[in-house]
This record gives sequence, C-alpha cells and structure tokens, in this order.
Amino acid sequence: MGLGKASIRPKNDNGKDGLVDTVTSPNDVFCSVPGRLSLLSSTSKYKVTVAEVQRRLSPPECLNASLLGGVLRAKSKNGGRYLRERLDKIGLNLPAGRRKAANVTLFTSLVEGEAIHLARDFGYVCETEFPARQLAEYVNRQHTDPTEIPTRRNMILAAKQITKELQDVLCQDRTPIGNSRPQPILEPAMQRCLTHFSLISHGFGTPALSAAFATLQNAFTEMLKYLEKAFPNSVPPHSTTPNGNAPPSKMDSNNTSTKGDKVEDTRGKEVV
Amino acid sequence: MGLGKASIRPKNDNGKDGLVDTVTSPNDVFCSVPGRLSLLSSTSKYKVTVAEVQRRLSPPECLNASLLGGVLRAKSKNGGRYLRERLDKIGLNLPAGRRKAANVTLFTSLVEGEAIHLARDFGYVCETEFPARQLAEYVNRQHTDPTEIPTRRNMILAAKQITKELQDVLCQDRTPIGNSRPQPILEPAMQRCLTHFSLISHGFGTPALSAAFATLQNAFTEMLKYLEKAFPNSVPPHSTTPNGNAPPSKMDSNNTSTKGDKVEDTRGKEVV
Repeated sequence: MGLGKASIRPKNDNGKDGLVDTVTSPNDVFCSVPGRLSLLSSTSKYKVTVAEVQRRLSPPECLNASLLGGVLRAKSKNGGRYLRERLDKIGLNLPAGRRKAANVTLFTSLVEGEAIHLARDFGYVCETEFPARQLAEYVNRQHTDPTEIPTRRNMILAAKQITKELQDVLCQDRTPIGNSRPQPILEPAMQRCLTHFSLISHGFGTPALSAAFATLQNAFTEMLKYLEKAFPNSVPPHSTTPNGNAPPSKMDSNNTSTKGDKVEDTRGKEVV
Repeated sequence: MGLGKASIRPKNDNGKDGLVDTVTSPNDVFCSVPGRLSLLSSTSKYKVTVAEVQRRLSPPECLNASLLGGVLRAKSKNGGRYLRERLDKIGLNLPAGRRKAANVTLFTSLVEGEAIHLARDFGYVCETEFPARQLAEYVNRQHTDPTEIPTRRNMILAAKQITKELQDVLCQDRTPIGNSRPQPILEPAMQRCLTHFSLISHGFGTPALSAAFATLQNAFTEMLKYLEKAFPNSVPPHSTTPNGNAPPSKMDSNNTSTKGDKVEDTRGKEVV
C-alpha cells in the first residue's frame, strides 16, 4: 500500500523530461499555491517545496492523490492521474488507491507557508487585541484579602516559571519546514514528538501554542503588576523585572521538614 | 465618514423589493459562503447572518465594500456597487469611500462559522496530537533533586490554579456570534473587552486560546503524574483528582508572618 515515507529518487533517475533535473532537490519549488485566506490585493502565493510535498505524502498524514491535489489546488484531470504523473516525474511515488492516514481538518488544506502566516497573525492578534490587563485585574479583584496576597503572588510567580519551562522546550523545536531543515537541539525523542505535532498541523500548531502561552504570560505579569499597585505593603518592591519576566519564585512546600534545604536553593533569586 | 455602528433600519422601511421583508431580522441569513479551508467533498457552506454582516461593518473592523465583498466572496461588479445596493436593501448603510479601521490579517477573510470551525479543529489537533506527556516528562527530568520535589509540586499546582482562574473567565464570554446572542454573565466592562477580541478574530480568538490553555493544563497534569510516579515518597498519595484537575494548592508565602491565616484558608482542600 506504500504508507511508508515517500522517497525521492536520486537525480537523473528518469532524465528524459527536461523538467526533472530542475526539481529533484528537496528545496526546489514544486509549485506555487494561491493563499486560501488572502483577500483582494493581498493575494499571496505560497511556494511549496518538493520536501513539503514529500512531508504531506509521508506519515503521519499520508495524503492521497485527490487530497494532495486539493491542497495544491491542482486542476483535477483524469482523477488525479496528471498530478501522480507530475509527482512521479520528480521521483515521488503516489500509488493509486492509497489511503490517507490522518483525519482531515481545516488545517489539512493549508500549505506550510500559509499555516505559518496564520500562526503569526494569531500571535499578532493576541498581542495587540487580547485584554490581558483587564482579565488579570478581573481575576485579582476576586482575591482582596491582604493576608492572602503574598501567597497569591508566589502562586503567580510559580505559574510564570512552570509555564516558561514548557515554553522554552517549544522554542527549541527544529522541525523541518518550508525549505529550511534546521539542526536539532532537543533530545531526539522529544524532537520527534514535536515534529509529529508540526507535521499534523503543517507548522501551525507549535507557533500558535507559543503565541497563546505568551498571551497567558502577559496576563500573569499583569496580575503581578496589579498586586504591586493595589497592595504595595504586601508585595516586595521591584519584584518583577522590566521586561515582564518575573524572577524564578522560591516557594516553601507544605512539607516543612524540607525547609532547611530550600533556603540553600540557589534558584531563589527573589528579593524579599 | 460613517465609522459608527452600522444600523439596521426597521422592517418594511424600504419595502418595494420583495426580498427586503425576508431579510431584515438580524438572525436572517444574508448569504452562504463556501468555506475557504474545505477540501474536495467536504466543501461546507457557512451561513452568514445579517447580524454578522453588521458586526463586520461596525467597529472594531469597519470593513469597506471591497473587503466585505472579498469576505463574502461576492462577485465584484461596478467596484462594489452591487454589494452596497444589496446591503442598502436590507437597511445596512455602507458609504462609498469608507475606510476600514482594523489591520487586515488572514483571519479577516474568515466568516464566523469557519473561524469557529477552525478553532474547534485547533482544539482537536491539540488534544489528540500534542505531546503533553512527553513534554511534561522532559521538563521534569531537569529537576531530579528529591528535596526539591515538594516545592516543584506546589509550583505546578499553583500554575494549574492560576491558569484555571483565567480560563474560567474566558469560559464565561458571551459575545454574540453567528445567529446566537447569549445573555451576558460577566461584568459589562470585562464582557466588552472579550467582545472586542472576538470581533477582531470573528470568534476564533477566545476558543483558540481556551484550547491552548487546556493543552497547557494537560501538560501540568502530566507533570504532577510524573512526580507521583517518580518520587512516590515525596508526593502525597491521590493528590490529583481522576479528571486531572488538581485541587487548589495551598502555598506558604515567603512572608512567614502570614502563616497563621493560611491554615484557616478554606480554599486549601489539599490532602497532605
């Protein structure tokens, strides 16, 4: 059935057609696809590389000919035979009757260029329009007991730090995308999982999650700012750094027997 | 210039045309728009209500005729005059030469029905494909000092709780969308901010953020599970509830003078 990784044959393997030699490198452009989400004058075209087509034909998606044709907005001729022949010419095998492996979602129709563009726009909208400050103040106003404030503040600092630890891993994702094939820096098992997630969403997933987590961090920072302003006597001064990143919090556990160790914890850089 | 809220004239205001009476209620369908992101057989059509058109013409977006025509995929005739006339017939004024108020992004081209569908698909992809457990374990493996574990655990519980407080507000968003106009439950000022965010993203923003925050909560829960498994002696048993929601954490502040109050804090339901 050929659900395995679609392979690229070496150059000049089927060299009768003049086109072949020019498009057998993974970074070569296979075709340009008009953006599905562009409006009027801003009708961008996204370049789709041979490597991208190969990714869509390989697991986890294993697109079949008709879905790939839809993604690439190829004119359907002879039930996808024309596309299969074009793919075959550049050494990508797409057997007839092959089954797709992943569920089709609205993200399936996006080429990587547009998926990345959409994630960037999502980040832009979150950064410029999401009411992080108002949300933070709204939540904070439900906790007005001054004796509770130092605990609340430590909880927010903890939320910032734990979230940041997860964000930092996402930042190190080096999934190949478009015509880039960056050097991995994460452990192979972790990178493999992030690559899978990227392949399913064609590059949208991780940057979109990162944008959402950055929005959450903004809300955390606004919560801290509010506490400093509303309870100046309960909160140590200058406790958030100017760029909005709080220093790692040091937090006592409920298990008081471990307290002695905690004092020596070098992560606690907080000004108390 | 008419950047104010586009108004719907009362029924029968310009009743010469038979069409008019049938489409002057906000819940009436103005047109059906083919999905931009649907593939092949799944070519959904999204119904656009008069209320939705009104929202797109009003602040914050204030679409002009050509952009609205692009969004509705209306055939451009006479530079948008045909669309303006159709709008005028249902009582929506769209003066020529009006300027849009918001930046165009890829989200601008989505009608509300497709924006909601896209957010739902994003949630589905995150839930089924994001490697929350692997990410959680990867981060946890960087903190292996057993004396540190009780503190780490409390930090994760705090992250869960603070994030949940923010999620709970987003859940209460009651922005009108499609043909629904739900009863607000949040304070008007807070609801207004969330409505603005929804209007800018046509319903994508808040559910997409909620999906991302739910994904983050999954990772937090996986971090707790890992700690319980890897450090059974440092973590109280049964500390996470079966549905993955940890009970609110009780966290001592660095300010030990407030300790006495904390013991009486009724939010602390944790089994220590």
